[in-house]
Amino acid sequence: MTNPPISRWPVPALEDLPDDIRARILEVQAKAGFVPNVFLTLAHRPDEFRAFMAYHDALLLRDSGLTKGEKEMIVVATSGANGCLYCVVAHGAILRVYEKKPLIADQIAVNYRKADLTPRQQAMLDFAMKVCTDSAAVADADFDALRAHGFGDEDIWDIGAITAFFGLSNRMANLISMRPNDEFYLMGRVPRAAKG
Amino acid sequence: MTNPPISRWPVPALEDLPDDIRARILEVQAKAGFVPNVFLTLAHRPDEFRAFMAYHDALLLRDSGLTKGEKEMIVVATSGANGCLYCVVAHGAILRVYEKKPLIADQIAVNYRKADLTPRQQAMLDFAMKVCTDSAAVADADFDALRAHGFGDEDIWDIGAITAFFGLSNRMANLISMRPNDEFYLMGRVPRAAKG
Amino acid sequence: MTNPPISRWPVPALEDLPDDIRARILEVQAKAGFVPNVFLTLAHRPDEFRAFMAYHDALLLRDSGLTKGEKEMIVVATSGANGCLYCVVAHGAILRVYEKKPLIADQIAVNYRKADLTPRQQAMLDFAMKVCTDSAAVADADFDALRAHGFGDEDIWDIGAITAFFGLSNRMANLISMRPNDEFYLMGRVPRAAKG
Amino acid sequence: MTNPPISRWPVPALEDLPDDIRARILEVQAKAGFVPNVFLTLAHRPDEFRAFMAYHDALLLRDSGLTKGEKEMIVVATSGANGCLYCVVAHGAILRVYEKKPLIADQIAVNYRKADLTPRQQAMLDFAMKVCTDSAAVADADFDALRAHGFGDEDIWDIGAITAFFGLSNRMANLISMRPNDEFYLMGRVPRAAKG
Amino acid sequence: MTNPPISRWPVPALEDLPDDIRARILEVQAKAGFVPNVFLTLAHRPDEFRAFMAYHDALLLRDSGLTKGEKEMIVVATSGANGCLYCVVAHGAILRVYEKKPLIADQIAVNYRKADLTPRQQAMLDFAMKVCTDSAAVADADFDALRAHGFGDEDIWDIGAITAFFGLSNRMANLISMRPNDEFYLMGRVPRAAKG
Amino acid sequence: MTNPPISRWPVPALEDLPDDIRARILEVQAKAGFVPNVFLTLAHRPDEFRAFMAYHDALLLRDSGLTKGEKEMIVVATSGANGCLYCVVAHGAILRVYEKKPLIADQIAVNYRKADLTPRQQAMLDFAMKVCTDSAAVADADFDALRAHGFGDEDIWDIGAITAFFGLSNRMANLISMRPNDEFYLMGRVPRAAKG
Repeated sequence: MTNPPISRWPVPALEDLPDDIRARILEVQAKAGFVPNVFLTLAHRPDEFRAFMAYHDALLLRDSGLTKGEKEMIVVATSGANGCLYCVVAHGAILRVYEKKPLIADQIAVNYRKADLTPRQQAMLDFAMKVCTDSAAVADADFDALRAHGFGDEDIWDIGAITAFFGLSNRMANLISMRPNDEFYLMGRVPRAAKG
Repeated sequence: MTNPPISRWPVPALEDLPDDIRARILEVQAKAGFVPNVFLTLAHRPDEFRAFMAYHDALLLRDSGLTKGEKEMIVVATSGANGCLYCVVAHGAILRVYEKKPLIADQIAVNYRKADLTPRQQAMLDFAMKVCTDSAAVADADFDALRAHGFGDEDIWDIGAITAFFGLSNRMANLISMRPNDEFYLMGRVPRAAKG
Repeated sequence: MTNPPISRWPVPALEDLPDDIRARILEVQAKAGFVPNVFLTLAHRPDEFRAFMAYHDALLLRDSGLTKGEKEMIVVATSGANGCLYCVVAHGAILRVYEKKPLIADQIAVNYRKADLTPRQQAMLDFAMKVCTDSAAVADADFDALRAHGFGDEDIWDIGAITAFFGLSNRMANLISMRPNDEFYLMGRVPRAAKG
Repeated sequence: MTNPPISRWPVPALEDLPDDIRARILEVQAKAGFVPNVFLTLAHRPDEFRAFMAYHDALLLRDSGLTKGEKEMIVVATSGANGCLYCVVAHGAILRVYEKKPLIADQIAVNYRKADLTPRQQAMLDFAMKVCTDSAAVADADFDALRAHGFGDEDIWDIGAITAFFGLSNRMANLISMRPNDEFYLMGRVPRAAKG
Repeated sequence: MTNPPISRWPVPALEDLPDDIRARILEVQAKAGFVPNVFLTLAHRPDEFRAFMAYHDALLLRDSGLTKGEKEMIVVATSGANGCLYCVVAHGAILRVYEKKPLIADQIAVNYRKADLTPRQQAMLDFAMKVCTDSAAVADADFDALRAHGFGDEDIWDIGAITAFFGLSNRMANLISMRPNDEFYLMGRVPRAAKG
Repeated sequence: MTNPPISRWPVPALEDLPDDIRARILEVQAKAGFVPNVFLTLAHRPDEFRAFMAYHDALLLRDSGLTKGEKEMIVVATSGANGCLYCVVAHGAILRVYEKKPLIADQIAVNYRKADLTPRQQAMLDFAMKVCTDSAAVADADFDALRAHGFGDEDIWDIGAITAFFGLSNRMANLISMRPNDEFYLMGRVPRAAKG
């Protein structure tokens, strides 16, 4: 049986990649137990790969008024709106792990208004969805709504910038038909003990 | 800790329900191991409950040119388009079980065009999505596209009618904020053996 | 001259129908003077017919905080939004008869905001239109707007459920190209005396 | 009992109007038996009134490859899409009279694809609806589709220009909440004999 | 090298035009230094040309609570929303000249919310955009928002009527692929002195 | 007179920036004669700045089957669709300079279908606009349309990736209300000689 393709474009072999990219991929593999397909498929263009990963890390690893889980909520909600299978599945997995809530990712991907979130998190996703779907209309009132929930200016930049970055990521994944690894679908759904 | 509400409206106690409705619910419970919340929440209105279930059974249990899995594909795809958390989660579970494919429901809910489906199934969902989102524009060309894949007239009625019925169901679930049972999220994701 | 078809699917002859369905149709014919095409066209699938009619009756014949006319306003407004010719024409006729207002159905079908309605009825249709076109976004504020006009919880269920049911009905009618009976177009437009 | 307003702006009295406008209005009244409200409400601005009527006459009274009825089909279909109550009701009446078909206006206003029209007329309305809703995307293929049905260049200008003019008219009527005269609703629905 | 066509339809020669139309065109040419293509392309239909120009003059030359520049802001914003190249380019030029602001037209055409405007002008364009894109939903609250900025009833008619007229104009220009004169693109961008 | 703000967030002073970022900005200033505001406003977050510029350079400076002008066409068309004032104005200027066509940027920003482009360039922008507005629906037929115009796989990646990157850029610019430098508006509009 052949595996389904993970990209419309050629996927480079690990040994053909520049050292820095191969090193990064091996590091991820060691940590996660598998290589998420975004690394292999985007490595088709090494310079764009490096910029993509640098941007991702700058936003997602940064200290922030948002928790790591909240950042992933933004990714999952906006990727759902953009119909991006890779990002919903892969970041849905990460979200479940961070939040230790096995239901949260499906809730947010389908309809964040029905998800088990705080009013503050709902406001965060309202703003993210506006940046995602109608950024030209973002206005003072949208900033005021966030500030009423205690978000500061740097938090708001984070919300908007993560949404913007995954606007790029979603379009790339849809363009190349990036396929999520099978491993992501179950991650964070089953209690650790059950897996031992 | 209190459980989150499963409906914006009162949820009747089993013992307060008419006999036929209680019998149906107990039958489902015996079979599934739990009572799906759609039964409890819609039982708030017994006559509407009976009509809803009769309609559901007439469409979903009927012999058809569509497999049981294909019918659930229609439910999951159109419920995703309607942002209906209950139906995506509950029918996604049923779809995984019928198809014995743990990835299929998430794929279809986020973007059916990227799902592991046959061209015939893709055409089926193209039609279902048009009935779901723009039924006024359904035209001869849409029927021709289905017939080119071997769908007969009764199959096409099934595709359209299941879409129409879940158009109702999605709106009811969104109206009452029907909450999916936690059990659905994991169903069909883990091989049977692993659960034993 | 041949009559135009009333459905894309075969229409059963009265004598070929199950007894209960034929009885219901004859009863309607006796009362209305003709058989509305929804009865003949949906009878192609007897089980679905029975569920459809049971659901219809449960919602439309139920005692409610909404008048019979108000229920039909919901049907006409949402069917207009869905581009459903059958439901606009047939239920527009019923609405005119109930309300004894020959202009009301056309007003609501084209633009309910310009119709001769009370502010309470306008609020009812605002809510119905949101359930019809964007049910995933229905939120507390929408319920509050209805309560400010005195609608109770059971009234709100009625508004939402009638909208949901005709979401099904509109899609079925568009799917099968259900043709309204000519008789509906003039019903309720001419004062009784003028017809005598 | 007071009559409902026919405009959000003041409506001039006949005797206060410039002679040419009063003459035109009296001429229409003599012919139709009543003064359509578009004449009274737009007369609030005499210069705009004159230009509006000149434009209307240039398009609607012009010899054309389109029949008078076909021109009104365009008006009714696009006015329906724009949610313009005045134009759907008033021009629906005129359409019924021209075509001597009591059902045609309601059919076109709700969903022209389900109306009793020739394929040529359907193509005409497809084009009109594209000019109405997305004129920026009108392209060679749209012109080709019309030419395949025998429409010449001047016919196509007529289709587009009538749509454009009622794009103006619909927006004015919605702006001022122009109310259709009660007389329009029944015109052309009842055979002449029945009225005698 | 041949010039690109300025219309999909034949463009009449000046000498073939009726005297009044030729006179108007020569007058414009004397004033502007060239003949804007709208005059030549619409002259294909003299009666419609006369009505178009009469309507234009009635609205744009009228004394008003809006400045001439503000009227052009409405034209540019709504023509941008309609994707009308001719009107954005030609009226953008006029707007720059009237306002003596070389940046204003591009700002408004792309995203009026980011333009250097007063809050009153922003409110004016909010209203115009609603009439442009969703006139059926214009409601009391929209009028109230304008009145809060000091707009009177006649000003509001001007805003709505200019929007409506260019709704016609944009659709005509898109229909015939009316090409803007090259001269418009630079008008009002360079200080007068620089041209001397 | 104070200058209008160029960002909703603080704009760092050159001397406060990390050396590499200051060096890059000074290099741009030397070449362009001014510092485009994107450099100053995004420097608020140095790590994101570096990733943004690296991504930009990887895509825009790369050897490609697209000319430098064609890449800018993609930027201007999709930024217009996203209502991004900064990118339309700044990249419109660059496009005019590359193509030595003073009209091309305005044409593409308002309605690329009416622009002076080759059929191959029109197809390129059709694809870019689909990735911009509905990437989830990109399908084989879209790729086939590009291949029919001679675009190879790497060209298609370029089209999609540039669109995706400016999907990010447009959202950031709209989020922070990034103001285009006045200098951009006139660049490439006046022949060099005229400026001497």
